[in-house]
Amino acid sequence: MELDVGLHVIGIVRTGRTVPETTPIQSALNRAERGTIVIDATYRDGFDSLGGFEYAWLLTWLNQLDGPAGLPPLRQVPFLLRREQRRVGIFATRGPRRPNPIGLSLIQILGRTSAGIDFAGVDLVDGTPVIDIKPYVSRFDRPPGVPRCGWFDQVTISESVTPAQLGQPGGPDPPHDH
Amino acid sequence: MELDVGLHVIGIVRTGRTVPETTPIQSALNRAERGTIVIDATYRDGFDSLGGFEYAWLLTWLNQLDGPAGLPPLRQVPFLLRREQRRVGIFATRGPRRPNPIGLSLIQILGRTSAGIDFAGVDLVDGTPVIDIKPYVSRFDRPPGVPRCGWFDQVTISESVTPAQLGQPGGPDPPHDH
Repeated sequence: MELDVGLHVIGIVRTGRTVPETTPIQSALNRAERGTIVIDATYRDGFDSLGGFEYAWLLTWLNQLDGPAGLPPLRQVPFLLRREQRRVGIFATRGPRRPNPIGLSLIQILGRTSAGIDFAGVDLVDGTPVIDIKPYVSRFDRPPGVPRCGWFDQVTISESVTPAQLGQPGGPDPPHDH
Repeated sequence: MELDVGLHVIGIVRTGRTVPETTPIQSALNRAERGTIVIDATYRDGFDSLGGFEYAWLLTWLNQLDGPAGLPPLRQVPFLLRREQRRVGIFATRGPRRPNPIGLSLIQILGRTSAGIDFAGVDLVDGTPVIDIKPYVSRFDRPPGVPRCGWFDQVTISESVTPAQLGQPGGPDPPHDH
């Protein structure tokens, strides 16, 4: 079943990244790098009071990915399992090639400008459309204790790591590290 | 600008709630209540390995809300500020009446069944369409330290609180608590 909807583009992400394969895979792994959200003027009033929050969830539409059109494979090799070439269900990954390609990035809000929002934590290529922003609320967004995180608990996760550093999409041979 | 997309409905949320005004406002405030996600058979393989995760982000399309069609107000009185009748920008709230009505619920995964996923943490009415599920990954989703959370830091937040318990949408008089 499909919901035939028009997604409003709230704004556009501006970053220094253009190629998904060489863009860090998660904002939390790349907290120092800065970007900007250029807000569509229509939605400017919607950002009142966001400055009081230190972090926010940036929801994006990941329409700039390589790969064939249509439904992506439901079992995929995540970036972090490229060396092992191990497949898991797409809903057990944070990968971008999802049935609905919605990105969820935890960004640190640095400040407002006349045009938009300066943030830190880049995992998106330049030009990515923003479809929602929600404030990070510890009371809502932090589960108690130290939750089990599935296969992520068994892999080494390096700061600022990119897909290209983790190997090639289709094969077991990672490129040489630089 | 609009993106004209078809959102795939991955599944349907089944809960014992039918009225948004009397449904708890956040899953994290209602961790004991259980629900089920009935997965569309097309997407079943996409859930392989999700059972290794204790929590997940449930992304939903909040199409069952009262209120007029069209773009909702960009400044709104959040549920938790109904008593004060204070308006803030919609992107500084977690309210459901957003330009793109995408819900983000942190659910605890209890187990898989042949039909879908049992979870705890109900903040959705029965029948809500699921558009994505992502595993909760502490390394990605937990900001360092104790982040500022804007106006949420100044309000009292009770367990299992519903909009109706916080006052009426348009006025300052809360109903009597039951």
